[in-house]
Amino acid sequence: MNPNALKELLDGVKNGIVSTETALARLKTLPFEDMGQAVIDNHRELRQGFPEVILGEGKSATQIVMIIERMHSNGSNVLATRMTPEKAEAVIQVFPSSQYNQDARTITLLKREIEDTGKGVIMVISAGTSDIPVAEEAAVTASVMGNRVDRLYDVGVAGIHRLFHHSERITSANVLIVCAGMEGALPSVVGGFAARPVIAVPTSVGYGANFGGIAALLGMLNSCAPAVTVVNIDNGFGAGYVASLINRKD
Amino acid sequence: MNPNALKELLDGVKNGIVSTETALARLKTLPFEDMGQAVIDNHRELRQGFPEVILGEGKSATQIVMIIERMHSNGSNVLATRMTPEKAEAVIQVFPSSQYNQDARTITLLKREIEDTGKGVIMVISAGTSDIPVAEEAAVTASVMGNRVDRLYDVGVAGIHRLFHHSERITSANVLIVCAGMEGALPSVVGGFAARPVIAVPTSVGYGANFGGIAALLGMLNSCAPAVTVVNIDNGFGAGYVASLINRKD
Amino acid sequence: MNPNALKELLDGVKNGIVSTETALARLKTLPFEDMGQAVIDNHRELRQGFPEVILGEGKSATQIVMIIERMHSNGSNVLATRMTPEKAEAVIQVFPSSQYNQDARTITLLKREIEDTGKGVIMVISAGTSDIPVAEEAAVTASVMGNRVDRLYDVGVAGIHRLFHHSERITSANVLIVCAGMEGALPSVVGGFAARPVIAVPTSVGYGANFGGIAALLGMLNSCAPAVTVVNIDNGFGAGYVASLINRKD
Amino acid sequence: MNPNALKELLDGVKNGIVSTETALARLKTLPFEDMGQAVIDNHRELRQGFPEVILGEGKSATQIVMIIERMHSNGSNVLATRMTPEKAEAVIQVFPSSQYNQDARTITLLKREIEDTGKGVIMVISAGTSDIPVAEEAAVTASVMGNRVDRLYDVGVAGIHRLFHHSERITSANVLIVCAGMEGALPSVVGGFAARPVIAVPTSVGYGANFGGIAALLGMLNSCAPAVTVVNIDNGFGAGYVASLINRKD
Amino acid sequence: MNPNALKELLDGVKNGIVSTETALARLKTLPFEDMGQAVIDNHRELRQGFPEVILGEGKSATQIVMIIERMHSNGSNVLATRMTPEKAEAVIQVFPSSQYNQDARTITLLKREIEDTGKGVIMVISAGTSDIPVAEEAAVTASVMGNRVDRLYDVGVAGIHRLFHHSERITSANVLIVCAGMEGALPSVVGGFAARPVIAVPTSVGYGANFGGIAALLGMLNSCAPAVTVVNIDNGFGAGYVASLINRKD
Amino acid sequence: MNPNALKELLDGVKNGIVSTETALARLKTLPFEDMGQAVIDNHRELRQGFPEVILGEGKSATQIVMIIERMHSNGSNVLATRMTPEKAEAVIQVFPSSQYNQDARTITLLKREIEDTGKGVIMVISAGTSDIPVAEEAAVTASVMGNRVDRLYDVGVAGIHRLFHHSERITSANVLIVCAGMEGALPSVVGGFAARPVIAVPTSVGYGANFGGIAALLGMLNSCAPAVTVVNIDNGFGAGYVASLINRKD
Amino acid sequence: MNPNALKELLDGVKNGIVSTETALARLKTLPFEDMGQAVIDNHRELRQGFPEVILGEGKSATQIVMIIERMHSNGSNVLATRMTPEKAEAVIQVFPSSQYNQDARTITLLKREIEDTGKGVIMVISAGTSDIPVAEEAAVTASVMGNRVDRLYDVGVAGIHRLFHHSERITSANVLIVCAGMEGALPSVVGGFAARPVIAVPTSVGYGANFGGIAALLGMLNSCAPAVTVVNIDNGFGAGYVASLINRKD
Amino acid sequence: MNPNALKELLDGVKNGIVSTETALARLKTLPFEDMGQAVIDNHRELRQGFPEVILGEGKSATQIVMIIERMHSNGSNVLATRMTPEKAEAVIQVFPSSQYNQDARTITLLKREIEDTGKGVIMVISAGTSDIPVAEEAAVTASVMGNRVDRLYDVGVAGIHRLFHHSERITSANVLIVCAGMEGALPSVVGGFAARPVIAVPTSVGYGANFGGIAALLGMLNSCAPAVTVVNIDNGFGAGYVASLINRKD
Repeated sequence: MNPNALKELLDGVKNGIVSTETALARLKTLPFEDMGQAVIDNHRELRQGFPEVILGEGKSATQIVMIIERMHSNGSNVLATRMTPEKAEAVIQVFPSSQYNQDARTITLLKREIEDTGKGVIMVISAGTSDIPVAEEAAVTASVMGNRVDRLYDVGVAGIHRLFHHSERITSANVLIVCAGMEGALPSVVGGFAARPVIAVPTSVGYGANFGGIAALLGMLNSCAPAVTVVNIDNGFGAGYVASLINRKD
Repeated sequence: MNPNALKELLDGVKNGIVSTETALARLKTLPFEDMGQAVIDNHRELRQGFPEVILGEGKSATQIVMIIERMHSNGSNVLATRMTPEKAEAVIQVFPSSQYNQDARTITLLKREIEDTGKGVIMVISAGTSDIPVAEEAAVTASVMGNRVDRLYDVGVAGIHRLFHHSERITSANVLIVCAGMEGALPSVVGGFAARPVIAVPTSVGYGANFGGIAALLGMLNSCAPAVTVVNIDNGFGAGYVASLINRKD
Repeated sequence: MNPNALKELLDGVKNGIVSTETALARLKTLPFEDMGQAVIDNHRELRQGFPEVILGEGKSATQIVMIIERMHSNGSNVLATRMTPEKAEAVIQVFPSSQYNQDARTITLLKREIEDTGKGVIMVISAGTSDIPVAEEAAVTASVMGNRVDRLYDVGVAGIHRLFHHSERITSANVLIVCAGMEGALPSVVGGFAARPVIAVPTSVGYGANFGGIAALLGMLNSCAPAVTVVNIDNGFGAGYVASLINRKD
Repeated sequence: MNPNALKELLDGVKNGIVSTETALARLKTLPFEDMGQAVIDNHRELRQGFPEVILGEGKSATQIVMIIERMHSNGSNVLATRMTPEKAEAVIQVFPSSQYNQDARTITLLKREIEDTGKGVIMVISAGTSDIPVAEEAAVTASVMGNRVDRLYDVGVAGIHRLFHHSERITSANVLIVCAGMEGALPSVVGGFAARPVIAVPTSVGYGANFGGIAALLGMLNSCAPAVTVVNIDNGFGAGYVASLINRKD
Repeated sequence: MNPNALKELLDGVKNGIVSTETALARLKTLPFEDMGQAVIDNHRELRQGFPEVILGEGKSATQIVMIIERMHSNGSNVLATRMTPEKAEAVIQVFPSSQYNQDARTITLLKREIEDTGKGVIMVISAGTSDIPVAEEAAVTASVMGNRVDRLYDVGVAGIHRLFHHSERITSANVLIVCAGMEGALPSVVGGFAARPVIAVPTSVGYGANFGGIAALLGMLNSCAPAVTVVNIDNGFGAGYVASLINRKD
Repeated sequence: MNPNALKELLDGVKNGIVSTETALARLKTLPFEDMGQAVIDNHRELRQGFPEVILGEGKSATQIVMIIERMHSNGSNVLATRMTPEKAEAVIQVFPSSQYNQDARTITLLKREIEDTGKGVIMVISAGTSDIPVAEEAAVTASVMGNRVDRLYDVGVAGIHRLFHHSERITSANVLIVCAGMEGALPSVVGGFAARPVIAVPTSVGYGANFGGIAALLGMLNSCAPAVTVVNIDNGFGAGYVASLINRKD
Repeated sequence: MNPNALKELLDGVKNGIVSTETALARLKTLPFEDMGQAVIDNHRELRQGFPEVILGEGKSATQIVMIIERMHSNGSNVLATRMTPEKAEAVIQVFPSSQYNQDARTITLLKREIEDTGKGVIMVISAGTSDIPVAEEAAVTASVMGNRVDRLYDVGVAGIHRLFHHSERITSANVLIVCAGMEGALPSVVGGFAARPVIAVPTSVGYGANFGGIAALLGMLNSCAPAVTVVNIDNGFGAGYVASLINRKD
Repeated sequence: MNPNALKELLDGVKNGIVSTETALARLKTLPFEDMGQAVIDNHRELRQGFPEVILGEGKSATQIVMIIERMHSNGSNVLATRMTPEKAEAVIQVFPSSQYNQDARTITLLKREIEDTGKGVIMVISAGTSDIPVAEEAAVTASVMGNRVDRLYDVGVAGIHRLFHHSERITSANVLIVCAGMEGALPSVVGGFAARPVIAVPTSVGYGANFGGIAALLGMLNSCAPAVTVVNIDNGFGAGYVASLINRKD
């Protein structure tokens, strides 16, 4: 609640237009809604331009359906991530118009058409084919949040001419999301010749001394290209989300 | 070299305007300059809108002075980071118009006035007073790269009302850089109510199970606020750099 | 055995009331009871005010039933934690009056009514819905140990206004248990405005660089709020136990 | 600000006793004081019963003197920790009545006499002589915060009869702080026969696979005695602080 | 593209033999072929003397079959590693002439006979029987790449006379691949008396403080025998590949 | 082969009693037997007084049966560890007189009666009931290697009076094996009052920050009791083996 | 206090020979002596056959001199380890007959001649010259505790024929202490052909991925030779101590 | 000693040409020379084609001079690494013809001219200027071991066009050594287009989450380019050594 609104409220109290009780109640009313165990933050859409996203991991199918129901009835578009086929199935039975993307493991349920709110294109790059699920999670998130997305997959550094073949597409993107497992070197290379922010997503792809993505994570944190920032291992959603914030037209 | 320039060059060859030798030479000339051991990337300014920045750490005063000399004579503004007082002193003796910022440990040497190229304000927040050197490195970098910077220091989560006191300044910034050591919780809180990208900088401030900034780094990578991306421990420069890319007016 | 009892015993020996053999035996008799492989510590209730709690993990259903049988026949109230549905089922068949709490994964079997021995309220807070099993383990433990418990779930730092909505309940608690996964920042925030001890429980909720709860654990150990102490990852029981010790009326 | 005060304020606005501007200002006034870079939290004493403590580490002597000056002039008792002899010297020159405890590395500057606000005794135990600086930091903190403190040093588990010699003192304490390096086993033993909360402080005493206190930290987090909670490595201050909260008479 | 070819191209343009468009296209055409998600690097065989190898892990049977089909129709010999029996079965159904090596978990499908291109023998040594799958992956890789392979298995350091029994075979090899789990000491011993490069492969064989091969990996990286280089844990393929590069006749 | 034997052999050659070929063959014959992939070290019994023990983990039932067959036919007593019930079943079908110990997960197959070769008693102590499988592996190993074994289970440090109840048994043992998970503190306590070598076995019992036994391992390596040495996590066999070497009568 | 002594005491009480007060006092008298901060355990010599050893690290020269004084006046032989030249100098000034061993960093001060209490020889082996300080700490400890010591230095696994040159000395030792840094492979090799217990001491010798001795520590814990047990990194004292316990004649 | 030599010796014994004692002595004589604490392996030159190299780290100047003296008088060329200026100074005073390379921190002392024994060129590449000391150690080692060396420095992946500018030099090398700190991505890129073995050397250049070279090390171990093998952090010597073995003409 900003100062102007506050002053207006106090003026109302002074002028007798607003009763003390009403003022008290309004000051106390907080912008969320209690729903048993899961509290939905309805005002997030106002604050950040996009409704809260449901992380399917660690929630039961029943919990997810309940949360989607409430958000849907509030008129929000819904995005749920980390959805196993079983959980997706449960959602689709209740909301037949929801869409399951098996690669991205996402469910989307649209109440309103997605409006293009992006200044430019968000490019999503993956180093290998095994990194595609994470890349798709990022791509779907960015799409649902109102962005044009350009995908460029399987262009890892061991055959770096593959990447350079697409240098024009790369340099014309407004934000770049680069997903890579193993040594996680691709964001450094992309960050070295692109002129825009690069969001690096380490993936858990690899084995042995990869340690479930730590090698890629450390590689990206230590990138010699200063345009690179990093999100958590396999966090395609976070990359898509922050890329959308960067790309948003005011 | 983009396709249009390339086509123009080839047309010149075809039409006899450009000799084969000249074309060959131009195609061979690569956008960097060899300077003994250190290679300066002159085209970075063209690609990324800002000249290469000198990381003072791990270079001798002599090497730094040599690189500054060359960049300066190329007409570039110069920024050098991680400058000890001794190295700074050596630079100032050669370039008396250079400026040393002791908190930020930076040297700046301006050839041209800095032009405001930012869409909005970059806010730099620090959790504690000990995080200020890192915050200042970010702030100086963002300033030199042509941004208005708003500083908000010593507003850590254990006294969170301090932070909320400034909520209007925070919500009106276009990009936020949040520097925190210890548990590194501040970016999550800021990311929860700001509507813009948050670049989290873990600092090595802390002791014991902080492990030189690992606790803060992990905290930030696991942030429950999706607006947060992370750079390396103490990497104020990187945060300022990428914030500038995000904030840049086209 | 305290000095007075010792003196009394020696006086008995001196006066011939107690034989040397009896004295020897009494001095040797230690306050526990051997039960094949598992040794039950019956005197713990005397020393710490609560009988030993059974950690169901790593014990077979048969072992658990045997231990419950012995404790029950000694007149103790019984609490068993980390009980899978299968193990719980086995216990309920033998003790139909025992109660299984599926969220908390606890079995309780009460011989005597639980007496309220707490000075105030123990508040149990969880950051997310996925942290609830750990929070419930803490809450059940504190309840069985004779405390009033107030639960506040899904109030993580990324939407911190949810937490502040309940500030009165929080500040009126006598001890606070705060369960959080991911970056584990919630205890710092709670510890910053509550005036009472905060027991932080890192949970293994998260993925990637969370490392099964290490990120949250390190965050809590490095808390900038000095009211915070920490227990092991997912150790809801330990948190409930020590909160009860703190809250106990003398 | 609690609801009653808020209601009173709103009533004042309604009745014309309080102007809108004054109400606005009071609602905006937050309980801290900006002092250049370091923000002092004056209301902490109201919230938690003790003024903010100055962590000397990472602050210059000048910064520390400035903060002490402000707190002192506000009438607060002052405690500063992690004070090197050089920093202590600088403080004593300005405040000759301040006391430096070389073992604990603390400065205390008392404006008012310390009042005994504790229900019982806080016992501080150390495993070895090298753990004493950490133990003393805890003991001084607890003393300054108004508690009677009982010290028991050099009673590690390899000669456990030393510990049992003092079992009466141990069992009569209201809270126990146990400082140990190396394998950190002492809190488990103490927690096994004491009936009160045990705050375990791992110290960085040890070498090799001790890893600067990690071995002790892990040992304490995995304690089989449920009465044990843990603070950061070498965090004597935190242990003393939370022990004081537990021990406080209402 | 080397300078001569470039000059020739430019001369062609100048002389009208090559059109500007063709020149442009040729300059842009990069040596790879896009195949939906998986990009096959057909030129690798030219650059490195061996076609790209398919890492079966993380790819579906369908993806693997598709890639094999394309490579096979290009006339390449095919090697796929980390093939489960199920994936192997799927390949064999489509390509009945392909061979599955169960120990090595490899599929080979030969279009042309393998030519001996090695200068000498590549010896593959394993410390224990459990290391054999990794050793076999190395041996099969080296064989398919045109080398004579000599296997020596189960000759670990705890019975070092077993190893020395074969010292002649060892010293006559041109390259040595040494696979070992547990403490990974064998490469140091082999490297101490062999006169040729030793490629050490840590395996994930072991338990407890082995940490899935880390103990062996660290042991090999710290080898006191300077002839030793190291590849990733369980990376038999990489060892066989680089041994082939070393052993190749020009 | 010792120098005397060598001299004798050479004398034989000199005197024509031994042909050059025979000498050559004997010098080459090494004390092991190749058996396809697994090499059995028959001379270990001569060198270390006990035949090689079969680690069942990582070997197939068929491989194990084959190795047992060969050792058995050589007249050796056989001990196999880490035997799952399935592998044990396969062995028992072939060798009905072999014994499976389900707690210890061992198979023993005796050709000759076990002779008591120990100077004193080997005591095996476990901290909790979940540590018993590891303790039993140690106990069975020590028994099969010809020692009297005394077991003392479930006497962890949180109820340390349980341990002291048995102090006489403890102090009369010749070697002590102490198995403990969680914080692994028990060996330090035992090592503090026993006068004989203590072999500490960390177990993987625990959760959270136990990290599969690392907490216990580090605790034991940092023991303040100098009588303590450590083996790998869960390595009951190793502890039993080395205890037998220590306890052996000459 | 054993049962017989206890019975005798009780009989004395019964018969009036011992007063209740005396009995009480004797039962209360514990076998240690309080000396301000440092508690000396005088009965350790009775329990373990050797007086407490002073760890010089972390104690001031003054503290060390005080402890030596007391032990010396009690008639004990004194051993102090981890003594810097400065601390050694301070001790020698007070006790001119004390001996400083610069390699081992030990001070010895003998009141009584050292008696040979060992059954056989303790062999101390080092892999490299840089491991000698640790090896010497072990050797001096074993000597002072009454053992014959045989030293064999610089015989690491990369030139393993050096080690085998001394195989007779090695196989005739009763206990072996093997100190090695880097990959720590030597104990496995020694343990493979010696028939006696091997105490492995990882040293912090190495660089890079050695991590201050972790590589060697892990190598030794994972040794494939079951005769190997391990002590902490650089813990030569502990190795010498436990080797003495093993070697002690009864 | 190979079988032919052995047979010849035995024949000599048989024929009376060689006495038993001589044979015994020759069989016992092992190829090394004891020199107090440091054992020099003179036969290494025979086995591996190059004399033992002196690791200056961890040895005193006096020890180093002694070892050089002995090797020099044996007619060997000498290479000493990790030489501080102080140690180098001490060597030069004794051997004025020795050469100190300050970048590489090496001392070389040549008895015989270095002969070119390499098949091709060894290329040494560094990512940044701070990696040059490690690169130089590799280059000097390779040179002294008889190879032509081509250096290419400061061509890191963030400005990858710098690297490609030199693609012809790179592809014409016979072996490549690639030194990189930070994220360690350069070997993957080089390994992707070179057709020869790539030896990756992680350097400790970096800060924060670089962890002293671990990030680079993990990146290299997880390289997606199979031509890459890895040596220890900062181990330029090892890389130069093994590159020489690979490059050696037979």
